[in-house]
Amino acid sequence: MKNIYMDNAAGTRLLDDVFQEMLPYLTGEFGNPSSIHSGGTKPREAVEQARERVAALIGAEPGEIYFTSCGSESNNMALKGTAWAARNRGRHIVVSAVEHHSVLHAAKAMAKLGWEVTTVGADGRGFVDPYDIRKAIRDDTVLVSVIHASNEIGTIEPVGEIAAAARERGVPFHTDAMQTAGVIHVDVSDLGVDMLSLAANSFYGPKGAAALYIRKGVRVFSLIDGGIQERGRRAGTENVPAIAGLGKAAELAARDMDARIAAITPLRDRLMSGLESAIPKLYVNGDRGNRLPGNVHVSIEAIEGESMLYSLAKKGIMAASGSSCADKALKSSHVLTAIGVDPALANASLLFSLGMDNTDEDVDRVLDVMPPIVERLRSMSPLWNG
Amino acid sequence: MKNIYMDNAAGTRLLDDVFQEMLPYLTGEFGNPSSIHSGGTKPREAVEQARERVAALIGAEPGEIYFTSCGSESNNMALKGTAWAARNRGRHIVVSAVEHHSVLHAAKAMAKLGWEVTTVGADGRGFVDPYDIRKAIRDDTVLVSVIHASNEIGTIEPVGEIAAAARERGVPFHTDAMQTAGVIHVDVSDLGVDMLSLAANSFYGPKGAAALYIRKGVRVFSLIDGGIQERGRRAGTENVPAIAGLGKAAELAARDMDARIAAITPLRDRLMSGLESAIPKLYVNGDRGNRLPGNVHVSIEAIEGESMLYSLAKKGIMAASGSSCADKALKSSHVLTAIGVDPALANASLLFSLGMDNTDEDVDRVLDVMPPIVERLRSMSPLWNG
Repeated sequence: MKNIYMDNAAGTRLLDDVFQEMLPYLTGEFGNPSSIHSGGTKPREAVEQARERVAALIGAEPGEIYFTSCGSESNNMALKGTAWAARNRGRHIVVSAVEHHSVLHAAKAMAKLGWEVTTVGADGRGFVDPYDIRKAIRDDTVLVSVIHASNEIGTIEPVGEIAAAARERGVPFHTDAMQTAGVIHVDVSDLGVDMLSLAANSFYGPKGAAALYIRKGVRVFSLIDGGIQERGRRAGTENVPAIAGLGKAAELAARDMDARIAAITPLRDRLMSGLESAIPKLYVNGDRGNRLPGNVHVSIEAIEGESMLYSLAKKGIMAASGSSCADKALKSSHVLTAIGVDPALANASLLFSLGMDNTDEDVDRVLDVMPPIVERLRSMSPLWNG
Repeated sequence: MKNIYMDNAAGTRLLDDVFQEMLPYLTGEFGNPSSIHSGGTKPREAVEQARERVAALIGAEPGEIYFTSCGSESNNMALKGTAWAARNRGRHIVVSAVEHHSVLHAAKAMAKLGWEVTTVGADGRGFVDPYDIRKAIRDDTVLVSVIHASNEIGTIEPVGEIAAAARERGVPFHTDAMQTAGVIHVDVSDLGVDMLSLAANSFYGPKGAAALYIRKGVRVFSLIDGGIQERGRRAGTENVPAIAGLGKAAELAARDMDARIAAITPLRDRLMSGLESAIPKLYVNGDRGNRLPGNVHVSIEAIEGESMLYSLAKKGIMAASGSSCADKALKSSHVLTAIGVDPALANASLLFSLGMDNTDEDVDRVLDVMPPIVERLRSMSPLWNG
């Protein structure tokens, strides 16, 4: 029985073309990009080529791309770095309630150090209202950060309008685009954002490579101070193989994006409506139209998410119950709480995140195995009186 | 002509055994260690095995090892994380003048945010005096950080005594062991340190993987907040292949350390004394006895370091002029300034950092090509009147 991987939100596989791009820098070309001798030449060129490719993916200038080690680092750098740089202008940050933990907890860390944080809510489908953001901005606001698309429920936020609201008030705007960059069309000028976080592992690149886009002129302190790498904004020897892989993955994502979306979206829609019609009292979370192409997030009454995951895993189907970064103790997801999902139902949630390897047969199999699993689990559940 | 790599301080090559250890996690086992399904199992086990191996290398408990993306991140986390955690007890940090930039600039960043930093000097051989550290500690000191061995001049500091001085005053002590862990014997209990930074790329492991040892009970804020990875102290999806590589490199370093030291040290000594006897007015920097096994750092009167490097590179010899993290514009090294080297001589410096691949023939070749290069460069130098 072939395993079915539907956990791409937790990380994608590495494309072989990407691996091949990394290989020389793992083996022969191990030099330090900062070295003056020839050992540094190819690693340095690889890093700069990757920078051009990532810039091209999101419509930025290469000089506006700063490589980091992971999306969480990018988000922390955006939040904390901006707050520190603006500390004498004001100490107020606006975030949404549906952010990834790396934004929420970075904001919380700043709150511990004396910053004020306003958390703007979302509606039942997960949308943050640009009007609410506008209202939350104060004279001492130094940053607004709103996620481009939720890693849990898949709702794509109206980031362009939110960015415009921030710009109107002269406040820098950051978006966590970890689930969108390399997946759907993302252009920093179209969106009008000042900072944007992305990570290779969301679009078939390696772990260990991510980037923060910082629009020219935006002031951000370093999170990692030290050497002159990344024009002095992010110290540490460059992870050359991973960065080269990020670049290649960005190039391939730009080239194949439309085809990937065209292949994945119908699978998502068929899985979503198939589950809805096969399983009573199963509810799709998030918006239907403005939704990540691979995201199917559902809550199933009287089911425990974790039991469901184990049952699926036994059938070779790999899914998730929410954010892979959240506690395995399965506290209710803060995103589901924010959109008003009842706690019992929130704990009964499943996330299938489809990717380019998924097929019609995969969807068939999930639709095949899910109803009997749900029926069995419900038959044992004291909460079920269907 | 075979190239001779004598720039191991800027980064070592990846051992094939280490690469093989990484390979499964680059290809098939790409899952997220936080995933509940089977895709997360092997990655999670790989991370925990690596933790045990790194802990064993430095005599720590696995639960005291926190993986980071690079040595600079480890140093920044130690400096900033400790300062923030202790912000209500005091805002004074003690560092030495011969630290790596990632310690010095992290301290500087905290100074911008209102902390006070005392920089303790070093003697002519690069030694930091434990007595000076003791004197620098105040009632509001919250951290002392002194490098284990200089990445430039190779001097191994009396870290055990310095740590004792800090402990006596109840102040947490951190050491940047980037050049020593995996290279010479390092044991956190023997040294009595509270925190220690190490990086895989110093001992034939990959780029992108490093660690911060934090003794149980020491309070450190996160640098990267977010998910629950690394027991909540370092968020972000684990870079599994790189971490697995770090673990394997640590295991091999522990096993082969004595043999490596025994092979490299005589090469170092022969190169050092060979250069001294062949080239007039060439001075070895750093201490002779307490010195990294592979470090040969010299200053050569009336020579420009960079010209020297290019001439060597033409002969296939890869060396460095100092820290690979410093500006290529070759401002005088802060370490050489700290030990009182004249600026002109400081700019006339060369660092050969030998590794396990270097041979007697390599040393012969350097000793063969250096004198005529120096002679030629001096003949063109207005500073030379030998």
